[in-house]
This record gives sequence, structure tokens and C-alpha cells, in this order.
Amino acid sequence: MNPVDLIIRRAYPYETEKRDRIYLALNENPFPFPEELTKEVFRRLDGDKMRIYYDSPDKELIEKILEYLDTDFLRENNVSIGNGADEIIYVMMIMFDRAVFFPPTYSCYRIFAKAVGAKYLEVPLTKDLKIPEIEVGEGDVVFIPNPNNPTGHIFEKEEIKKILKKGAFVALDEAYYEFHGESYIDLLKEYENLAIIRTFSKAFSLAAQRIGYVISSEKFIDAYNRVRLPFNVSYVSQTFAKVALEHIGIFKERIEYIVSERERMKKALKELNYSISDSRGNFVFIFMDKRERDRLVEQLRWKNIAVRSFREGVRITIGKREENETILKELEVFR
Amino acid sequence: MNPVDLIIRRAYPYETEKRDRIYLALNENPFPFPEELTKEVFRRLDGDKMRIYYDSPDKELIEKILEYLDTDFLRENNVSIGNGADEIIYVMMIMFDRAVFFPPTYSCYRIFAKAVGAKYLEVPLTKDLKIPEIEVGEGDVVFIPNPNNPTGHIFEKEEIKKILKKGAFVALDEAYYEFHGESYIDLLKEYENLAIIRTFSKAFSLAAQRIGYVISSEKFIDAYNRVRLPFNVSYVSQTFAKVALEHIGIFKERIEYIVSERERMKKALKELNYSISDSRGNFVFIFMDKRERDRLVEQLRWKNIAVRSFREGVRITIGKREENETILKELEVFR
Repeated sequence: MNPVDLIIRRAYPYETEKRDRIYLALNENPFPFPEELTKEVFRRLDGDKMRIYYDSPDKELIEKILEYLDTDFLRENNVSIGNGADEIIYVMMIMFDRAVFFPPTYSCYRIFAKAVGAKYLEVPLTKDLKIPEIEVGEGDVVFIPNPNNPTGHIFEKEEIKKILKKGAFVALDEAYYEFHGESYIDLLKEYENLAIIRTFSKAFSLAAQRIGYVISSEKFIDAYNRVRLPFNVSYVSQTFAKVALEHIGIFKERIEYIVSERERMKKALKELNYSISDSRGNFVFIFMDKRERDRLVEQLRWKNIAVRSFREGVRITIGKREENETILKELEVFR
Repeated sequence: MNPVDLIIRRAYPYETEKRDRIYLALNENPFPFPEELTKEVFRRLDGDKMRIYYDSPDKELIEKILEYLDTDFLRENNVSIGNGADEIIYVMMIMFDRAVFFPPTYSCYRIFAKAVGAKYLEVPLTKDLKIPEIEVGEGDVVFIPNPNNPTGHIFEKEEIKKILKKGAFVALDEAYYEFHGESYIDLLKEYENLAIIRTFSKAFSLAAQRIGYVISSEKFIDAYNRVRLPFNVSYVSQTFAKVALEHIGIFKERIEYIVSERERMKKALKELNYSISDSRGNFVFIFMDKRERDRLVEQLRWKNIAVRSFREGVRITIGKREENETILKELEVFR
């Protein structure tokens, strides 16, 4: 069969819910990127830089990321950037011999593995949401979101270490780090076979600008830089990221709001007797069987509310207070 | 050997010349992106779109590209976009079984093939710069820049057809199309195994914004969209592309300037008895043996002028008139 036909048979696109009145399907930040910061980005743009192949990453962005990480052991060569965290994941699928992940997990792991034709192994999390016993080793890259997507729960450091000790490479996907506040970045001091993936899409309201970053050993970063596109993140996107990091206070306040709404939602859902996970992301997760889930998603769709379905239940992004109230009322009626 | 070590051995980064007083190494447009258009982009941005996973491509951009292409046979599903033309090339390396290209050619074909671990075949152009006789077929993707990079010469339509008839897929890389003014896009009416690649980096002074597009059969575009990153081009970059296409007149004037400078340069170089190709890109190419080439590049570097070396000679980007004059004077002295 010719390659084009083969791809249409093998790979499938990432599909998203129709944009509705209340859109809580993609774990987007409910706050727009601050207008005064967009103005600052444009004030800073140099028209003559637009026409050139602008360094990706530029030194200044890496310095600001290092400052944000605030460690005493990471240097310039320990960090690189991606066209969203997605490009970093995609490139790692290309770099290693086999991808391993544990559903329920970020759906793009499977989508990208199929897209690039990578070998992959999916083993579900255990019933109590722990990483299962698996045989992995050199050549494998194990993708672990922490907080996990879609459940939002935290894996124990020992669970991660167990995989690291087996010699597999671990891609620890901390896309939702800011809503939890704790990172396993210190594991990098001990392990060379680890990369931490982060993004500006969630906490910094910059999903449309496509900027992620990766932190690892110098050697891994060197290899990553050889495999990714040389000019992978635009000049304007890098400028957005820099300006965001310079105004971290604005985003911290918003994160606090989202975290407090998440905790309020969790409490309310428990009181309504829903079975939920202990989410530390900007979303909550309700365990449901397929029939109940479909009924709920359908009811919400009638009210023009979009959420995301998983085999194990429903994930609801934390929105602004009135959006969360609306969905809570629906969940009350549904109960 | 572990995958990270293997990559460091196999793949190499795309290296660029140091930015100098006069930088004519990367075929960048000498004119900055117009400030009034950057202002227009900014005026049009919706802060609330920045926080979301914005459609890539958005319908409006595809419509504007179709309008620009101005054909009677292409529809929305015949076009997609990339994070620069580079992503389109990179993804095609992943899609097909083997990449084929003809040096001297765009250096990223080899770099990306090594990066993604694709099989590839390099066969040099014939002495008179024609496509060599090769055995290719289904499963192969043949990359042909037209105008060719770095020589800038045009391949005959019959040379392209010969490959198409063999059943290989042809990626016709028209990155420099606007400086030539003629496309082989009509071949798409006849052949399903063809994609035309274009970019906003050259004619539209938007290299730093990373926007390319690809035109092909519905089926190929569907397959490409499954393999590429789902959100591959940022909201702001797409807005830049749209605003550029709405003000095509500004760019046409600049293209005329560059083309007339190129013709002036070619004439002057001939008069100085340099052996040059008939370039239709925004650059000229001087054939030189290695020793002469190194001596020239070294001399130019002393004067803080950067150009690009190839095994077959030197490629010099067309700059603004005074830059072209400066380099011509150097070439006169060198002669």
C-alpha cells in the first residue's frame, strides 16, 4: 500500500469539541492573556527581526526560564523549547525506540505515536491509579503527566524513581505544574535519563502561541536540538513567553483563583456523591461508567456546555466562577 | 547504544553563519516586515483567542491563500499549513519510506532525514544541472526546489513529469516562487502524487514568524494533517500571514526591486568573468572550486560580510542596493 493510504489507515487527527457557550473541554485558562502584556510584546518587537531566521531559543528566553525554575544546578544547556509542549513529545517519539504510557493519560501520546509510526506500549494505571509494574529499559521513553491528565492526581516520587532505575528514559510532563505547585525537577540531579516538560499554554494563557520547554541533561538537550526543527518557535511567540515571565505576579493571582475554584468544585462534587479523583490540575475528573457518562455529556451539550469524555469518566476544566456554578447546577440536577 | 547517543552520532544541527554587518547567508528578504502591517496584526488580535487552542489552519487563512493562488481547480481541502515550509518537509520525511534529493540542493533535506532517521538517497544533479536518471517509485518522496536552492535555476516541467510518471511522490519546493513568478502548480490537475510547498519567509519578510503552506490532493492533505502537530502554527503567525496577503501590493514592489537587483548582479558578475548560474531566486550563485571559494569567503568575512558556502561554490543573497554594491566591489577586487 502506498504511504499516503497507509497513514490514513494508521493515524488519526486530534479532534476537539465544538466551541460552545461554555467550553470546558481543553483545560484552557479561563483568563485572556492580559492586554497590557500584549501591548508590551508589540512595543518590544523589532520589525527588522521579523524578516530573519530568528534564534530558537534565544538566550534571553532561556535565561528567564532558568530564573523562573530557580534552581542552583541547571544551566543554559539544560533547557530547550518546543512548538508547544506537543512538539517536545512528538520529537521524543521520534528519538526513542518505543513509547510507553499509562491510560487514562494525555490522548496525544497515542495520537503522536501513530502519527510518526513509533512503536508504543499502553498499560493502564492500576485501579488505585498507580503506575503498573512493567518491563522497560534502555530505548524506551515513558510518558508520565504529573499531575496526571485527565485525573489530575499526583504520582509518588517513588513510582517515578522505579522507572528511572530500570534505565528507561522518563518524560515527566509537568504541563499542569503551576496548579499543583510542586515539581520533581530535583530528580534531574540524580538521573540523566529524565526530561521535564512544561508549557506556557495553561498557567500563562498562551495556548494559541505554542510555547513549551524541556529541562534535562546537557546531552539529552543536545540530542533534542538535533532532532527538532531548527527554527521551531517564532520570534513573536518567544517574546510573548519572555513578557509573561517578567509579569509572573499577574499569573500567580489567577492560578490561586483557579486552584481555589478547583477545590470548591471538588468539595461540591463530593457532597453530591460523585466519585472524583484528587485533581491538582486546572480541571476535575468524575469517574463514571460509559452509559452515565454519555448521558451527562449529552445533557451538558443541550445546555451548550462542552466537556471532555474519557473511557473512565468525564473531565471538566475549571472555568470562571459563574461557569463553574452553571456546571455544578447541571451536575446537581443530573444527580 | 542508547538512543540519545545514537542521535548525537547520526544527526547534526542546522548551523548558520554569525550575524555580521552584511548578512547575505540565509536568503532572507532585505526589507523589514512593514511596521504598519504589524500594527494592523496587533489591532486585529483578540486577547481571548490567545488563551485557547486556536485552529491551525483557520478557515480564513486558507481562503486567503486560495485567493492568492488564483486557480480554478483548488479547494479548501487542497491546502494546509506548516511551522515554516520546514515542518512540511520534515513531516514528509516521516510520511514516506525514502527521501530522494539532488545536491546541490536545500541542505535541510539531508539534515531532516538524519534527524528523523529516514532512509534517503542523494544523487547529484548532472553537470548541466538537470535531474539525473534515477530509479524511484511508490514509497519514495523526491524533493525538488524550483527555483533550485542554491543555484536558483529552473528545472524543466518535463524533468518533473518524468519523476511523477515513475510513481514517486514529488515535493516541489517553491519557496522562491515569487522571485521567479512562474509555478508548476497546474501539474496538480494531472498528478495526485505531487505536493507544492510554499513559504511566507522569503517574499513576505516573515521568516521569524514560521509560516509555510502546502498544496496537494485532498487525500495527501488529509494524511499530512494526521501526521503534523495538530496546533502547528500560532494564532499570531496566522494573523501575520493573513494581513500580509491582504497587502500584497507592498510585497510585489519589493519583489520587483529584488529581482532587478538580482539581474543587475548577474550581469555584473558575468562581466567580471565569474561562472554563475541563471538564478531566479533572491540570490545568486557563483561556481568555484573549494580553494577559491574558501579564499573568497574568508576575504568577505574580514569585511564582516557573511555568505553561504556549498561544495560547488558560493551563494549570495540579494540585499539592498548598497549591500549588493559593497559585495560587488569585493568581488571585483577578488577577481
